[in-house]
Amino acid sequence: MPDSRNPNTARLLISCPDRPGVVAAVSQFLYAHGANVLGSSQHSTDPRGGTFFMRMVFYLEDLDVTRPQFERAFQEVVASKFAMDWRVAYADEVKHMAILVSKYDHCLMDLLWRRRSGEFEVEIPFVISNHEDLQDLTVSFGVGYHYLPLSKETKAEQEQQVLTLLENKVDFIVLARYMQILSPEFVALYPGRIINIHHSFLPAFVGTNPYKHAYERGVKLIGATAHYVTDELDEGPIIEQDVTRVSHRESVSDLIRVGREMERTVLARAVAAHLEDRVLIFGNKTVVF
Amino acid sequence: MPDSRNPNTARLLISCPDRPGVVAAVSQFLYAHGANVLGSSQHSTDPRGGTFFMRMVFYLEDLDVTRPQFERAFQEVVASKFAMDWRVAYADEVKHMAILVSKYDHCLMDLLWRRRSGEFEVEIPFVISNHEDLQDLTVSFGVGYHYLPLSKETKAEQEQQVLTLLENKVDFIVLARYMQILSPEFVALYPGRIINIHHSFLPAFVGTNPYKHAYERGVKLIGATAHYVTDELDEGPIIEQDVTRVSHRESVSDLIRVGREMERTVLARAVAAHLEDRVLIFGNKTVVF
Amino acid sequence: MPDSRNPNTARLLISCPDRPGVVAAVSQFLYAHGANVLGSSQHSTDPRGGTFFMRMVFYLEDLDVTRPQFERAFQEVVASKFAMDWRVAYADEVKHMAILVSKYDHCLMDLLWRRRSGEFEVEIPFVISNHEDLQDLTVSFGVGYHYLPLSKETKAEQEQQVLTLLENKVDFIVLARYMQILSPEFVALYPGRIINIHHSFLPAFVGTNPYKHAYERGVKLIGATAHYVTDELDEGPIIEQDVTRVSHRESVSDLIRVGREMERTVLARAVAAHLEDRVLIFGNKTVVF
Amino acid sequence: MPDSRNPNTARLLISCPDRPGVVAAVSQFLYAHGANVLGSSQHSTDPRGGTFFMRMVFYLEDLDVTRPQFERAFQEVVASKFAMDWRVAYADEVKHMAILVSKYDHCLMDLLWRRRSGEFEVEIPFVISNHEDLQDLTVSFGVGYHYLPLSKETKAEQEQQVLTLLENKVDFIVLARYMQILSPEFVALYPGRIINIHHSFLPAFVGTNPYKHAYERGVKLIGATAHYVTDELDEGPIIEQDVTRVSHRESVSDLIRVGREMERTVLARAVAAHLEDRVLIFGNKTVVF
Repeated sequence: MPDSRNPNTARLLISCPDRPGVVAAVSQFLYAHGANVLGSSQHSTDPRGGTFFMRMVFYLEDLDVTRPQFERAFQEVVASKFAMDWRVAYADEVKHMAILVSKYDHCLMDLLWRRRSGEFEVEIPFVISNHEDLQDLTVSFGVGYHYLPLSKETKAEQEQQVLTLLENKVDFIVLARYMQILSPEFVALYPGRIINIHHSFLPAFVGTNPYKHAYERGVKLIGATAHYVTDELDEGPIIEQDVTRVSHRESVSDLIRVGREMERTVLARAVAAHLEDRVLIFGNKTVVF
Repeated sequence: MPDSRNPNTARLLISCPDRPGVVAAVSQFLYAHGANVLGSSQHSTDPRGGTFFMRMVFYLEDLDVTRPQFERAFQEVVASKFAMDWRVAYADEVKHMAILVSKYDHCLMDLLWRRRSGEFEVEIPFVISNHEDLQDLTVSFGVGYHYLPLSKETKAEQEQQVLTLLENKVDFIVLARYMQILSPEFVALYPGRIINIHHSFLPAFVGTNPYKHAYERGVKLIGATAHYVTDELDEGPIIEQDVTRVSHRESVSDLIRVGREMERTVLARAVAAHLEDRVLIFGNKTVVF
Repeated sequence: MPDSRNPNTARLLISCPDRPGVVAAVSQFLYAHGANVLGSSQHSTDPRGGTFFMRMVFYLEDLDVTRPQFERAFQEVVASKFAMDWRVAYADEVKHMAILVSKYDHCLMDLLWRRRSGEFEVEIPFVISNHEDLQDLTVSFGVGYHYLPLSKETKAEQEQQVLTLLENKVDFIVLARYMQILSPEFVALYPGRIINIHHSFLPAFVGTNPYKHAYERGVKLIGATAHYVTDELDEGPIIEQDVTRVSHRESVSDLIRVGREMERTVLARAVAAHLEDRVLIFGNKTVVF
Repeated sequence: MPDSRNPNTARLLISCPDRPGVVAAVSQFLYAHGANVLGSSQHSTDPRGGTFFMRMVFYLEDLDVTRPQFERAFQEVVASKFAMDWRVAYADEVKHMAILVSKYDHCLMDLLWRRRSGEFEVEIPFVISNHEDLQDLTVSFGVGYHYLPLSKETKAEQEQQVLTLLENKVDFIVLARYMQILSPEFVALYPGRIINIHHSFLPAFVGTNPYKHAYERGVKLIGATAHYVTDELDEGPIIEQDVTRVSHRESVSDLIRVGREMERTVLARAVAAHLEDRVLIFGNKTVVF
């Protein structure tokens, strides 16, 4: 979408029961308030009793009211009538993203680089880790690093420290190979706002050492899946997936290396989609416009 | 798009100078006439003085007027005002597709199979060829075959015969490896309605025997491009492209085989997009929703 | 591999405990008997106590002995010494492949077409099905069709009929969407010689209606896996896998269509590898040269 | 190939006129000297008068002679007889790679990271640039940076400075988006040892601003090609290529971003192949084992 990163634009995201007149009502409202549409996507799971999704990007320049007025009016005039679940995101209100890591650097570095290169329009107030290993790397990108170690006994306490750091500071969280399971309480505080990345195989291998199992089964594809975190481990709504071909020639350590490559690539695409407000969650799946 | 093949739907395709109010006007019009929107895509090359593209799929069930009335009203109420180039396609008016072939069967067979399997919603009134080779194959799919041979001297005459056969019988034409160049007059009669397929390389190799050149250069990718035919040979708007990896192990004949595979796959995707009215032409490029 | 389909060539396939001197012994033997090497691939799972795999393609033209003599000598001079599991396949002894199908035609037609187009060097003595549906299609390709229906009660009996038909007639069997589970006795008669194809997902979905589950989970990739049949359902050595990207826009029936496309493509690649004797089975995995 | 990075291994690379007995002679020689083969690949352009290529990885542990003795003996006993072009690379003699850059950081950073993460077994003695921009980045990875600016007038002089720096310090050179054309004299000093990366399109677009042309033509694929540098600009032997899908939604700047992603990925694969001595050059093409 050309110019969708133009700071003078906003993105309107809507989901609601599908019924006639939704598009007309929304576009009429935007037009009436001088919000010129730059691009739009719609999707319906089923026009008869299904759910309708819409993402509209519009210019703010000729908006005839303030942002709060616009939002209030939208709620009153359109959203209430159609029982909409909606939000608006302004491109000039750059999102704040916390990154949680453990010891692997591949995802972290890729995210930091994409921010510095201007590919990601995002603020990264800090990186949090339960290890010291990635401090230098993080600092070399001009980003702060919080080292919060934990033991079995201090796990709950450490999570509380993490939450305190995050509070009011971030819009969403990326688990860039953070090897700790978040508590349901943590997850509940950031619904649809924690992105995780993990390897994926065809077929799936459960338990420890999945790369070893994949090697022993002679799989021909190694993949990665980025998803939103829910209470069910690695079962949240999928944002993005991809795979790379491998053969008998790859050793277990080669497969791990390929998996790392997939992880950083797939995570980057998921973060990009989230940053541009292209993801709508619906039950346990996503609509990615 | 779920249900987009529902026979009780229509697709509205619009391109026009981008200016405020287009989406509102169209969706308001549809809503007012009981045309419930099933899905929609929009794209703008530039909201300030660019071109705007829209595809809307809607239900016909509750339409409050006849199709001709609907179309007349749309022209008067909406299209004129915004200087729209537009058309509406009804899913129950199945398109008629002629296939022109020479001797290669891979693309032809794939198209015939996809029709028979129900994947393509299309009528194929006949296949035309300058060779007899593919008659049995075509007939075995229950499709008629016109053998219209040509020599250097009879080329113009044969093309006339082809045109006579096509006249009023088909909506669009697929050149499924038809090894004859169509005259500008022929092309002018079917603007944006002739689809061609050919191999593609990185880098490109001009002249005869491109696979041999590709082999000698040791390319690692073999591809195909499907495009609309214009007067400039193989330079028309691209609908679809794809590639497959190859290595030094492939001989020239292996590369040709890979190329065939790409051709039938890419052509099938391009035909699918055309059949579902997902392609809008704009200058020398396409918007494929 | 250029010319590997040259009828005047043979392929030597070896697996054995890895120890020094294997390659030297084999290549010395070939050289001594006038068997000029056209290409070769080797792989070792671990040079210290692992398993060694080799595939050598060589010319028969200057072979100084008959084929039986060559094989006897190889066993005596080389294979015994290294405890080799080996076989030689002559390109002019075209393999015989039976195809078992039920009602889906996509894999069957693709296989028949690849044979007719010369892409597959293979004889297809007949197609066997538990349904009548694909008889016309099969016959139109000049291939015989055996309709062997079955009910719950006659399952064992029908399988016996299938086995009788196959006996001494085929080298390997392709289950081109044959919706019956073969008995362990059947499988035991054709070890590493029955190829099956099925859909694959990330993550995997067990039970009925996997496409519906994949849709509900919002997967972004739809794949297929071709493998050799063993007693454990769909758990045999993988020959080939691939995936295609999908999005929220695909309905369940779209996903099924994409799955079909993947199935025929992946199955064709697996059959090609088998026909060219490029697959070696090792435990529950394959080496595909 | 498992363990191919084991420091106690060597890689023997051979190309020669194809004739009977090559494999036997080489493997016999290795066996006789206690060089246990870990893996091997062969390829012949044509066994009758074509060129034969071989790569053998073997263990050094039980070698019965010193490395110089081994190499001398190989030349005398085997290489001379078959008119071989050959070399042996020892895994523990880590290659030295110079990186030349201008202002773009994506390729440079990816290379530096892959080295630090242990993915690349390589020494990077320094980075050379005609701009100061990437100094901090380079230094943060603990690698030295030489800033050698140039103007039209000082181009030859600057190139001489570069050559002086490189002399006896590096095994090969990577142009990681170095926006200067090297002189034929420079190129002649490092035959098959300078790797370049550039974007690739289907079809190709020459001249300035290729991404703009690609956008205007509506291409659906954006790619990159890594090749060895020869005197003909961007026409040297291709090592690796890949593409990514794009659509009408990508703006010119989006295409550039996708192109960057492709460049760093494709360059990394090409460098990996070079580091592991998997590339053999033959005329204007490569064999990549």
